[in-house]
Amino acid sequence: MKFRFEVVVTLKEGLLDPQGKAILDALPTLGWNGVSEVRVGKHIELVLESDDEATARAEVEEMARRFLANPVIEEFRILPGHGAEP
Amino acid sequence: MKFRFEVVVTLKEGLLDPQGKAILDALPTLGWNGVSEVRVGKHIELVLESDDEATARAEVEEMARRFLANPVIEEFRILPGHGAEP
Repeated sequence: MKFRFEVVVTLKEGLLDPQGKAILDALPTLGWNGVSEVRVGKHIELVLESDDEATARAEVEEMARRFLANPVIEEFRILPGHGAEP
Repeated sequence: MKFRFEVVVTLKEGLLDPQGKAILDALPTLGWNGVSEVRVGKHIELVLESDDEATARAEVEEMARRFLANPVIEEFRILPGHGAEP
């Protein structure tokens, strides 16, 4: 079966996020004044073959930990699953 | 009140995603063979001041449509809300 997962990789709190700061600084010039914080991260969508959802999720978690996120400066989370692909 | 939202911006289906392809091509050399699709997008987290959650969400949606996503090649969605910030 195929399973689809979404992984969100974000910078750890406290680290400078230049992309987020650029957006934050641009918003008032575009008329939006109420925004106090912007952080930009990565969103990675994967489809993988596996026997069941728990095994697939464990594999995605290992990929995220070892390869997709840099553990020194980033953290990740897996969004609620989509179940098996049709 | 302050509200936190997460916006996911992804490339439209069918468009070439070089970042996703780079990850997909690297996975087998790292021992993962079951992955058939990888798409990389942006994850943007915002905190904004607003009277209520519906108004805040409408504002985030307008920001995403007019500024955060490029409507020609990208689409966006707002993840389920966090409610008011403490």
